[in-house]
Amino acid sequence: MLQTIAWTGHAARLLDQTRLPLETVYVDITDERQMWDAIKRLVIRGAPAIGVAAAFGAYLGIRHDESDSLAEFDAHLDQVCTYLATSRPTAVNLVWALDRIKGVSQETRKQGSRSEDLMVQKIKQRLLAEALTMLEEDKQVCRKIGEHGLELISGLRTQHSGLSVLTHCNAGALATVAYGTALAPIYFAHEQHIPIHVFADETRPLLQGSRITAYELREAGVPVTVICDNMAATVMKEGKVQAVIVGTDRVAANGDVANKIGTLNVAILAKYYNLPFYVAAPTSSIDLSLASGAEIPIEQRDSSEISNGLGRQTAPDDVNFYNPAFDVTPADLVTAIITEKGVAKPPYVQSLKALCPAGTGR
Amino acid sequence: MLQTIAWTGHAARLLDQTRLPLETVYVDITDERQMWDAIKRLVIRGAPAIGVAAAFGAYLGIRHDESDSLAEFDAHLDQVCTYLATSRPTAVNLVWALDRIKGVSQETRKQGSRSEDLMVQKIKQRLLAEALTMLEEDKQVCRKIGEHGLELISGLRTQHSGLSVLTHCNAGALATVAYGTALAPIYFAHEQHIPIHVFADETRPLLQGSRITAYELREAGVPVTVICDNMAATVMKEGKVQAVIVGTDRVAANGDVANKIGTLNVAILAKYYNLPFYVAAPTSSIDLSLASGAEIPIEQRDSSEISNGLGRQTAPDDVNFYNPAFDVTPADLVTAIITEKGVAKPPYVQSLKALCPAGTGR
Repeated sequence: MLQTIAWTGHAARLLDQTRLPLETVYVDITDERQMWDAIKRLVIRGAPAIGVAAAFGAYLGIRHDESDSLAEFDAHLDQVCTYLATSRPTAVNLVWALDRIKGVSQETRKQGSRSEDLMVQKIKQRLLAEALTMLEEDKQVCRKIGEHGLELISGLRTQHSGLSVLTHCNAGALATVAYGTALAPIYFAHEQHIPIHVFADETRPLLQGSRITAYELREAGVPVTVICDNMAATVMKEGKVQAVIVGTDRVAANGDVANKIGTLNVAILAKYYNLPFYVAAPTSSIDLSLASGAEIPIEQRDSSEISNGLGRQTAPDDVNFYNPAFDVTPADLVTAIITEKGVAKPPYVQSLKALCPAGTGR
Repeated sequence: MLQTIAWTGHAARLLDQTRLPLETVYVDITDERQMWDAIKRLVIRGAPAIGVAAAFGAYLGIRHDESDSLAEFDAHLDQVCTYLATSRPTAVNLVWALDRIKGVSQETRKQGSRSEDLMVQKIKQRLLAEALTMLEEDKQVCRKIGEHGLELISGLRTQHSGLSVLTHCNAGALATVAYGTALAPIYFAHEQHIPIHVFADETRPLLQGSRITAYELREAGVPVTVICDNMAATVMKEGKVQAVIVGTDRVAANGDVANKIGTLNVAILAKYYNLPFYVAAPTSSIDLSLASGAEIPIEQRDSSEISNGLGRQTAPDDVNFYNPAFDVTPADLVTAIITEKGVAKPPYVQSLKALCPAGTGR
């Protein structure tokens, strides 16, 4: 199984996803600026993965700190976390992970120490340990999502051709530390020899579907068919899929789901064709502080991703482009939200609250 | 105004659309094999344009014919037409144009001549004249569609921001001889200084929207915003467009519409957001011989258009691809069909029959 992020002992080693599918290249990230850049340029992407990456980024940012006082150290850690949070705005996991890192720093000092200097050293060790814990937890969370998700979709198997699902973008192993969220149930089905097939939307403009989802499913031996985003309706109309399953960057308290641009299109098509539309979401992606999806900030990206994103210029100069990186699918199009703690169904205001009684991921 | 196809006196001059948007290159087609290749490779594309192109192709195929007998000439013309019809299967205009060419050949001989040899010469002249007539007619048909279409959409103008429509693929000047079908109402609005704006789906895999629609609208000075296909739902959700208008390759008797892959997606989204979905169709695209869209043959194209279509490889080797070039939108998603003879509304079985009492384009 591919691993998106690993700790080498002195650096966070990332699989460079901008080079996929043709090259499998790893880069070692040794400071917070490199991590900010890696998240911004999508060297690493996917809400759960960038949460873990940000935690390592925070540690890398303060590991050489030589503050004389805890106050100075705190200010530095705050500054590093604030900086890392600006790399991408939509995924709540980033903020969640950085809040958790800051929380560990606060918790640690309650234990006391002989000097502020020693305390700073202790906090640094604990931050690295926390990042490593989050890395391991992410795998466990994905395994649990896989179990719950497979229970949901396995009942949709057709007698003659097994099970075929459509996914958008990449919410697979490469969007997490391993296994993935939306693809975890697929990997579990495959491990259990349940015949399963995936239609992968290529996912313009950055082609995470054809470059990344197709790559990781092929590596795992799961049959995958790549389509252009605009072929999803035809695939549904022809009865080629029994369900849609996608990941998410942030779920609001009412069940509105922010995810890669194009997810809303797929959700509307699934509704039209009466197919279940499932969202796989670690509870770290659930943000009960937002009443609805209207409050989720949507990242706008550079127009060159559309006009020049694929090796050559594909639109004339001097025209306009609109390039939102995410869209928000209203809760009433979402059949269920699969978390590591169980499956939430409508009405989501109640079911999400029950899964996260203390708010995001808690 | 750009002209897609012109007669030079000895060749059909085509604007090579595979080179757009960066290069404006014309190619002179001098025989039927070159024309078949130009249609197949999408040097020229768009149902109305390839109808006219096929008519010139038929003439180019027989202009050097030296048959001794009319029977021999007929066999040659039949062979050329049958060959040209295999270039692309979905657009009915191709068959319609070739049938019309064969009809002219039959009509001409009724006029009599001193010898079979002279008659063959006369038929050749008439076939060229017919192709030129079809070229002029196409412009007139598009102008009429523009007038009828503008009547329909001008009522949708918003008070604060004029009128904005979404289109898919290219059904503009470059899909016809000039003006276009879906874009004709846009050009008419622009000529009449009605503020109008177009959202152009880029239209994967071959990007006719970003390469061709954006190019021709920019040339004409119409404001255009290019989006990826999967952003259409967000554009609609945000109230950025008041209508959808597309072209078609073939309309069945019940109003089912075959058009570029992704049209069905857009039609379903328009329904969800209560936006009118208009199809601009010269009556030569209407095929009353087919009861429903299920009978329309759908061209499947090479998977390399998805995996390698944009300048570099964007999907791994050894995965599957599905690449239908067209889809069929059911009539119940179509608000109206705009033809040169007037606007057809549901129920289409009656309204299309009233516009084409003698069948396709007649």
